[in-house]
Amino acid sequence: MPPDRPRLTPAIADVRRAVRASLPSDGLVIVALSGGPDSLALAAATAFEAPRAGLRAGAVIVDHGLQPESADAAAHASRQAHALGLDPVELRRVAVGRDGGPEAAARASRYSALESVAAQTGAVAVLLGHTLDDQAETVLLGLARGSGATSIRGMEPVSGLYRRPLLGIRRATTVQACADAGLEPWLDPQNDDPAFTRVRVRRTVLPVLEQELGPGIPEALARTAEQLREDADALDHFAEEIAEDLAEHSEAGISLPVKALEVQPAALRQRLIRLAVASEFHVSLSRAQTLEVARLVTDWHGQSGVDLPGVRVERRSGLLHFTATG
Amino acid sequence: MPPDRPRLTPAIADVRRAVRASLPSDGLVIVALSGGPDSLALAAATAFEAPRAGLRAGAVIVDHGLQPESADAAAHASRQAHALGLDPVELRRVAVGRDGGPEAAARASRYSALESVAAQTGAVAVLLGHTLDDQAETVLLGLARGSGATSIRGMEPVSGLYRRPLLGIRRATTVQACADAGLEPWLDPQNDDPAFTRVRVRRTVLPVLEQELGPGIPEALARTAEQLREDADALDHFAEEIAEDLAEHSEAGISLPVKALEVQPAALRQRLIRLAVASEFHVSLSRAQTLEVARLVTDWHGQSGVDLPGVRVERRSGLLHFTATG
Repeated sequence: MPPDRPRLTPAIADVRRAVRASLPSDGLVIVALSGGPDSLALAAATAFEAPRAGLRAGAVIVDHGLQPESADAAAHASRQAHALGLDPVELRRVAVGRDGGPEAAARASRYSALESVAAQTGAVAVLLGHTLDDQAETVLLGLARGSGATSIRGMEPVSGLYRRPLLGIRRATTVQACADAGLEPWLDPQNDDPAFTRVRVRRTVLPVLEQELGPGIPEALARTAEQLREDADALDHFAEEIAEDLAEHSEAGISLPVKALEVQPAALRQRLIRLAVASEFHVSLSRAQTLEVARLVTDWHGQSGVDLPGVRVERRSGLLHFTATG
Repeated sequence: MPPDRPRLTPAIADVRRAVRASLPSDGLVIVALSGGPDSLALAAATAFEAPRAGLRAGAVIVDHGLQPESADAAAHASRQAHALGLDPVELRRVAVGRDGGPEAAARASRYSALESVAAQTGAVAVLLGHTLDDQAETVLLGLARGSGATSIRGMEPVSGLYRRPLLGIRRATTVQACADAGLEPWLDPQNDDPAFTRVRVRRTVLPVLEQELGPGIPEALARTAEQLREDADALDHFAEEIAEDLAEHSEAGISLPVKALEVQPAALRQRLIRLAVASEFHVSLSRAQTLEVARLVTDWHGQSGVDLPGVRVERRSGLLHFTATG
């Protein structure tokens, strides 16, 4: 059976349905293809669905050059993309720096290559193969950082140019879909290297969670991320609306009225403070710093002010004044 | 050294500071004392701090009668409470049912005994010994359920009559504080019984998370819970405010204007739907049910309506109508 006309199995149908639901209305979409089962199943489903939705579909393969076999893997993925009928198929070899560790550096090179291909081809969307399992891993990694909703909101289904059609699909389904379609995925040895935190989450942490807390943990983590993302988006939206009304800009900086901060729930008050500092001074406050500023409102006993990196906050005449220092 | 005048060690100071910060302004507080290290350290710190804050402090010991040694343990805890100078000291033996499993049934009996003692003694607050470690366990247990902020907001520092002064204190600190004060805690064998999910979280899940993701996981989970609790409280607050303006009550049920739901962020729209159904029909909607109702607003293509347990929702003349069925 040629790979372009596979039997319609449940796994293939699931992946196609997910892709169908997240295609844009017209133009060119390109699939970010690593050759692994996730992105290969995504590429096959996109090659099938896009023309039926009146779209064109291409692929971009990024060779990070990190392993001796990566050039072969990239060439193999390119041939698969051509065989699936994707067009154009762009292969980019990138140099990976060292900033922020190996995972972050590879990610930065990859996204920069994807954006350049999107710009050159005029693509309206780049489809990424992240699955529900990837989402669950991201949520656990974020939990370990402990910065609240920001860290456990997980990956966005749609973020600018990028779309992640498979966030509701288990990794095992993509593996099955490839097998059903006679497509041979490349198994990246880095996906088994326990030097990567994400690999340890996948191989050790999630299995222990499922064993001790019962099955369905990845789904539960993904569901939680979805709800928390909605909650955080709503609060960010309200904070921005309110900030526009409240914030007074001056040459010295920005100010917010104490009374208006007082009546807000804590989550809004803290977002307004963070927003004022971020918008005016491009500084991102930690929770501890934000709470210290909030105490000028909620626990006022004549404090002399709060010194943050590059910013001083003082309470005077019913206002919190944020001014640049040093 | 008698237990009522211990040397002031860092552990004792930490527990006392936490208790001091969460005492009410006057009246009688009672400590829920199991005799374990958490509640014993809490009892000792409360016995020290309460009189200095102009309060009276007592203790209540609940004997669940689930183990042969529980009566001895309860009697031992009572003697410790008396020795610490707590007054009154109330010992209650309760019968534990089976509803909702052994943990839930024991909890229900315990809280009912605590409330009855509080009512009889006129206590203004019941202090519970839950620590940061308990909070982290609660968050992980909630994550496994996957119902978003509701399930991972963790335990409240203050909830009605109850206060949890030690939510920021590690369990190891309470163990140390007891040792420093020469107080001998009772080690409940149930705390080591892997039949309890919470015990498995404590003994297996959290250690694996720390080992694979790095130290500080309990703190990260507790911090996350705190922020998510603030976020959820703010959204609940806004939803209640908006619902009051929007909801129209009639003999047949309740209705919400589609236009007003449309302009809200998803998190608010869903809360307004849940709130309408909960307030009018005392039914708590699942996420899937809530989203199905929301699609009458966000994905309207003439659906005939949504049937929920005991409630039917229809879109007519610009309104969502919620009416009782069956």
